Amino acid sequence: MSQTTQGSFYSDNTATVCPEVLAAISDANHGHSAAYGDDAWTRRLNDAFSKFFGTEVRAFAVVSGTAANALSLATLTPPYGAIFTHEEAHIVRDECGAPEFFSGGAKLVALGGEHGKLTVEGLTRGLDANPPSVHTVQPAALHLAQSTELGTTYRPHEIAALADFAHGRGLKVHMDGARLANALVYLDCDPADVTWRAGIDVLSFGATKNGALAAEAVVFFQPELARDFELRRKRAGQLISKSRYISAQLLAYLESQVWLRNASRANRLAERVGRCASHFLLHTVEANEVFLRLGAERKQRLRDSGFEFCDWGAAGSDEARFVLSWDQPDHEVQALCDALVGLSS
Amino acid sequence: MSQTTQGSFYSDNTATVCPEVLAAISDANHGHSAAYGDDAWTRRLNDAFSKFFGTEVRAFAVVSGTAANALSLATLTPPYGAIFTHEEAHIVRDECGAPEFFSGGAKLVALGGEHGKLTVEGLTRGLDANPPSVHTVQPAALHLAQSTELGTTYRPHEIAALADFAHGRGLKVHMDGARLANALVYLDCDPADVTWRAGIDVLSFGATKNGALAAEAVVFFQPELARDFELRRKRAGQLISKSRYISAQLLAYLESQVWLRNASRANRLAERVGRCASHFLLHTVEANEVFLRLGAERKQRLRDSGFEFCDWGAAGSDEARFVLSWDQPDHEVQALCDALVGLSS
Amino acid sequence: MSQTTQGSFYSDNTATVCPEVLAAISDANHGHSAAYGDDAWTRRLNDAFSKFFGTEVRAFAVVSGTAANALSLATLTPPYGAIFTHEEAHIVRDECGAPEFFSGGAKLVALGGEHGKLTVEGLTRGLDANPPSVHTVQPAALHLAQSTELGTTYRPHEIAALADFAHGRGLKVHMDGARLANALVYLDCDPADVTWRAGIDVLSFGATKNGALAAEAVVFFQPELARDFELRRKRAGQLISKSRYISAQLLAYLESQVWLRNASRANRLAERVGRCASHFLLHTVEANEVFLRLGAERKQRLRDSGFEFCDWGAAGSDEARFVLSWDQPDHEVQALCDALVGLSS
Amino acid sequence: MSQTTQGSFYSDNTATVCPEVLAAISDANHGHSAAYGDDAWTRRLNDAFSKFFGTEVRAFAVVSGTAANALSLATLTPPYGAIFTHEEAHIVRDECGAPEFFSGGAKLVALGGEHGKLTVEGLTRGLDANPPSVHTVQPAALHLAQSTELGTTYRPHEIAALADFAHGRGLKVHMDGARLANALVYLDCDPADVTWRAGIDVLSFGATKNGALAAEAVVFFQPELARDFELRRKRAGQLISKSRYISAQLLAYLESQVWLRNASRANRLAERVGRCASHFLLHTVEANEVFLRLGAERKQRLRDSGFEFCDWGAAGSDEARFVLSWDQPDHEVQALCDALVGLSS
Repeated sequence: MSQTTQGSFYSDNTATVCPEVLAAISDANHGHSAAYGDDAWTRRLNDAFSKFFGTEVRAFAVVSGTAANALSLATLTPPYGAIFTHEEAHIVRDECGAPEFFSGGAKLVALGGEHGKLTVEGLTRGLDANPPSVHTVQPAALHLAQSTELGTTYRPHEIAALADFAHGRGLKVHMDGARLANALVYLDCDPADVTWRAGIDVLSFGATKNGALAAEAVVFFQPELARDFELRRKRAGQLISKSRYISAQLLAYLESQVWLRNASRANRLAERVGRCASHFLLHTVEANEVFLRLGAERKQRLRDSGFEFCDWGAAGSDEARFVLSWDQPDHEVQALCDALVGLSS
Repeated sequence: MSQTTQGSFYSDNTATVCPEVLAAISDANHGHSAAYGDDAWTRRLNDAFSKFFGTEVRAFAVVSGTAANALSLATLTPPYGAIFTHEEAHIVRDECGAPEFFSGGAKLVALGGEHGKLTVEGLTRGLDANPPSVHTVQPAALHLAQSTELGTTYRPHEIAALADFAHGRGLKVHMDGARLANALVYLDCDPADVTWRAGIDVLSFGATKNGALAAEAVVFFQPELARDFELRRKRAGQLISKSRYISAQLLAYLESQVWLRNASRANRLAERVGRCASHFLLHTVEANEVFLRLGAERKQRLRDSGFEFCDWGAAGSDEARFVLSWDQPDHEVQALCDALVGLSS
Repeated sequence: MSQTTQGSFYSDNTATVCPEVLAAISDANHGHSAAYGDDAWTRRLNDAFSKFFGTEVRAFAVVSGTAANALSLATLTPPYGAIFTHEEAHIVRDECGAPEFFSGGAKLVALGGEHGKLTVEGLTRGLDANPPSVHTVQPAALHLAQSTELGTTYRPHEIAALADFAHGRGLKVHMDGARLANALVYLDCDPADVTWRAGIDVLSFGATKNGALAAEAVVFFQPELARDFELRRKRAGQLISKSRYISAQLLAYLESQVWLRNASRANRLAERVGRCASHFLLHTVEANEVFLRLGAERKQRLRDSGFEFCDWGAAGSDEARFVLSWDQPDHEVQALCDALVGLSS
Repeated sequence: MSQTTQGSFYSDNTATVCPEVLAAISDANHGHSAAYGDDAWTRRLNDAFSKFFGTEVRAFAVVSGTAANALSLATLTPPYGAIFTHEEAHIVRDECGAPEFFSGGAKLVALGGEHGKLTVEGLTRGLDANPPSVHTVQPAALHLAQSTELGTTYRPHEIAALADFAHGRGLKVHMDGARLANALVYLDCDPADVTWRAGIDVLSFGATKNGALAAEAVVFFQPELARDFELRRKRAGQLISKSRYISAQLLAYLESQVWLRNASRANRLAERVGRCASHFLLHTVEANEVFLRLGAERKQRLRDSGFEFCDWGAAGSDEARFVLSWDQPDHEVQALCDALVGLSS
């Protein structure tokens, strides 16, 4: 990071670990405890997540979002399966082919859709464009992100419509919830409303970006898929030996309402940045990310002023992404807002 | 096939085996002969293909085009590689994910391009849209088909431009030559001109569609890649035990000029059909396939009259494909031409 | 093969194609016919195999035994599965890791057993030595060969005992029947007795070694596994486009009793060679293979006399394998017998 | 863990995180920091490990030993490769097929060897028993553990002899150093002596068992293999987003001599337990593990007295493993010694 940083908006992965999570790790650090998931913390995961979602679930800890997504998808698709997803999805652009690796070669079918969101119409077209036969990969799963890769969120009825349609065509439905907390805060809805009640079968539940150290959960709303998952997780080196320290993060994240407080603050900051840059806004701010069409020159001016953010889209694109983290200093947000207002005038 | 078939234009895979190839199989059927490629016929493959291409090559027999393509690509790309190809390519649409399977999960990046042909501009955009980092699959190979999946052919300079550009970006270049003979006949050029001289590294050389029983060759213009291939072929169950009968087909196909005679006739017939349907033509006829925009009603009328052909494109598309085989009866072609002329008026 | 060959006993893969099979290929060579298994010959496979086995089966053609085995096993085991088999099995020693490739990384657990045969005791030990947990691969399949890789055969009750035990432990059972015909002839039993009636779930049915050109079938006695197989076969490049020519081989092989005649002759010749070499015999001759402990010097003398056969076992082993093919010339067998008698004295 | 636990000797994975490592995590928890390995901590890994090993290396953090091993091996072997290893190895028995998964189906060839150690003789036999041809998997890597799975250690000259031989046969050499610190302490040697100076190409360097939370490193002594590794790591979901917290653990582990202090204590305790149970000792105690042949009755008595340890070997085996952790309370060790002495008399 530059000496003269005015603000680091590159990613919420650059944020720190929140105090409650760090305390939970320390608190777990007493005495011997069974390894590989037989510890007291891990044994509480199913209950904690079942309570959070208001239904009985099975929840498994992993240490990266890529692993959560790819392992989830591998339980939902045969090697010759097709996974329908948005063309901007993290699994398409940022996981170095992890879903293909974990599934044994399934194919991602990338669909368009405004503002990072799939539609039933788009999914219908995608499925109809590839009528399955023995010569083609077989439609197996629908994958969507909540919030999306472009900082927007699906409404509960939108998810339900997609999942209904997908189920009707024989697909299972996976949600990438790397930023689920941000979506829940924005929608002000019950976790159930955008997951199992809307038809999600398996969820990657993110905690790392929103205050954990390295802890994600894979949540099965259909428990019968879970045995296969457990073996795939072990085989992938994602069953952590000192599992208590991963599970303790997740418990703290859920049970002390860290998820809510952290996401609420990040969303609020993002909304504020979005308001200051309304001229440039590419997508409504519905989580903790702000996407702006700034053009090369304005981007350079911001960078020269010490702001860090990432380019978005193809090489040479006009677009920029600003991510607001749970721990973003207020003065950085103020400075960014000031700079953005300056750019508009 | 229907009792009342007026003509079968579904695919050149529905054609028979030509007499020279069948005779070669019979001729090989005397006495014991070493298995798994140590036979006298297989030992002659390298020479026969080297002579055909005018340069020293290594050639390996397999029994399907899907295996030829997928095995070739697996030698050119790591599991985390990206293979750039046309969105209409056989490897994208018709191989049930074979390239992903054989490569261990590489990703096909499907590009557009008029009339089934890739362009340097399109490839540039495709590569630039996905600037590689440790988070992304790594550009590894360019794949193109000659003739293309839409019955068009690349000119030698077009291939050279694509291959040059690809090599400059660190990609290897693979050609799907399932219908290479048809392209060579159309272009009236030397086999070298559209392959190694134009920068092709590995070629799937098809014989089955053009008169063989089940025989394709994978031709390496860069012999150092061949050892890896041999092991992958065995591991894939494509090293045929009684290999003499596969190699004998390829030798007959090459050495008795069967490839030229058969492709010449099929191309001539296709050209004729194309002329009769010029109102409906989607792509120039540059091999043995004719693509027409007929619409649902005309397609039905043709089918009602007893013609077999395949729909092309998404469900409900207006398009139809007619393939002319090496053994297509003249009366079927005449009947089709009459019917198409009838549709135009 | 050497000019001065007195006899070629290297493998039944070196044999020719029998006249009935070649005639069937020629007979199929008239007119266009649907490709990829929709032809009239392939549509008859299920019936022909159901009749042969006396129960309703689903049968699929492939072109190599390696593909038949590996594809079969891939339908029976998850990627984290363990396949229990004999340490001499073809899938262990001679398929370049094909089962691992097709299954996505399953593990072969190689067990001992006299004369190439597994026992319930050995299988019990093998299973008990690896008590499954989330840390281990999961027992998924039992694989046995009939006849075995050492030319012996399982009696029906032996297969039943193994399959019963395996099923009781949750394993599926696969049989490699590359030389099933030879076993059936030796046992003089109904094909059902050593397959489905004894508990076999999936069978690799060999025809190539016993007179076909390149044709094996995978036979499912549990039809519900077949859809997965079809897609894996296509994906593996084993769905042959001009499928009629493969299916026609299998139909001729079954329906004209070629299997019986050819295997009977080969077995008879093997028995004769075994009798001439009884001093050296390693295993009872129960199919068309003879395994002898000859020692280096005797092997050299035989080779110097012009006999071809393969060494067996580790480098420098004393053992030799002689395979009698369906088309083995009588004079070669006589010469070999004479030579072996000469070695004994 | 039971209320009445007298001592937990199940595994060093049940131990806590040592204070220095926890402090390092806390110390890293200030301000934003680049993610995915571009942070200041991760950028110091190469130097820290280069200093530790006295040569220039490239080092990469992962979060489990299974991932470290499987990713390492995947860079050393093609999918059709064979990895030679001891039959007791963790990669054989305890990783649910991870090496097969990550490598795309390579085969583990399990060799015997007294006290968990491979010998050049055994490796020679293993290689000679499987002379490679196109029909077999290809010898690609030698894998050995230091200390071994049975708590013994290789002397530098033993490793050098194995690595020399392996290199001579074209194999790369990988070391599983999950307990490397314990071996270094026991041998009182320089880290270089049992790694690169003895011919190791790639090392899984363990820290978790010896005091870290979840941090292992893969160390490349041949840097040219590292690019492939980086992509495989990302693709496997092992590139942790908030990477600073993993790297900080490794730095603390190396730079504050935690590795040495912790392993020294654990080894000392193990030696003490071994002395108290010399009647039952299966292997010399050369690290922090003690293997005893106790028989079922004595094991039960120990368990009834509140000691936790794991059974070793096949179901019903007489053997037991006691692992001494860096944080093992003295009173537990004393109680175990007393109990073991009691069993002997």
